Amino acid sequence: MEYLKQRIQNEGKIVSDNVLNLDSILNHQVDPKLIQQLGVEFAARFHDQEITKVLTIESSGISVAYATALALEVPLVFARRKKTLMSDNIYCERVPSFTKGIVTDIVVSSEFIQPIDRILIIDDIIANGDALKGLINIIHRSGAQLTGAGIVIEKAFQSGAKEIRKKDIRVESLVQINSLENGIIVLA
Amino acid sequence: MEYLKQRIQNEGKIVSDNVLNLDSILNHQVDPKLIQQLGVEFAARFHDQEITKVLTIESSGISVAYATALALEVPLVFARRKKTLMSDNIYCERVPSFTKGIVTDIVVSSEFIQPIDRILIIDDIIANGDALKGLINIIHRSGAQLTGAGIVIEKAFQSGAKEIRKKDIRVESLVQINSLENGIIVLA
Repeated sequence: MEYLKQRIQNEGKIVSDNVLNLDSILNHQVDPKLIQQLGVEFAARFHDQEITKVLTIESSGISVAYATALALEVPLVFARRKKTLMSDNIYCERVPSFTKGIVTDIVVSSEFIQPIDRILIIDDIIANGDALKGLINIIHRSGAQLTGAGIVIEKAFQSGAKEIRKKDIRVESLVQINSLENGIIVLA
Repeated sequence: MEYLKQRIQNEGKIVSDNVLNLDSILNHQVDPKLIQQLGVEFAARFHDQEITKVLTIESSGISVAYATALALEVPLVFARRKKTLMSDNIYCERVPSFTKGIVTDIVVSSEFIQPIDRILIIDDIIANGDALKGLINIIHRSGAQLTGAGIVIEKAFQSGAKEIRKKDIRVESLVQINSLENGIIVLA
């Protein structure tokens, strides 16, 4: 993941001590070859987990989750952020967004997560982990098995990933950011 | 595209004479191998256009736009539906959503579309074409060249694609839906 680290150092823009703008890599523009490599890496890390579906949440996680699902040869499901023309049978969790300062409902149709499924969650960034906790709650409610979560970038100075690992849930992050203080991106 | 047509016939759920729910194929769950084929098809149709970037709008278009960008070996930019932690230099267009009955602002950072770019727009569905018209306006304002648009499913009984083609813009759709009346999906 040295190349990803270089891209983060070169193109990440520090917005505050807590927020790193990664628009040119993950959140607004993506490099498909880089994303493909990340998907292959996640697939390799979870290849023995007999995964049946990859789950992410719109929007920034979709491309890397797609690349992972393609490598694992399983369907991709992306949770929606509100109710729009979906079936009545939905799982809905209300989650705050650290970076956006708003609360959203994340929604998955129960049709697409069945008790027989073994789910791998993929997302781009974890900070406080609210989106991930919402997805985990949805999987638990569905009766499906959660095999773990693959996250491109973990903001290790925030508590989300640590809290989730404490619940014996496997969280694999490809790059850890230890600090954004004093205008410097410190990677692990 | 016979396989895509079969999937639409088998899994599409008619919501009304105007709206087809394609959650299991495009809008909530995707089959990565199918999406990959669609991306390769779009790349083949536009291969001689010297495209430098693929542009889509979050969220349902991202996976097929990613697959197209990967096949063309160019970056993917996805327009966001509101302003959130982006640079000050943005192009913003207000567009209505036919299916959702709401108005949203679609936003692209000017950093990611330059006058030197040759842009291919990719999206999942065209109905009245409001999202596509918004993206086209953004490209025109940026000074970049628009090479055309690749759309997975065209609702041919609505006017969006026709109106855009009248402006001499190339719109390639992989499947055309001629009617959803009387509970029957009629494909071209």
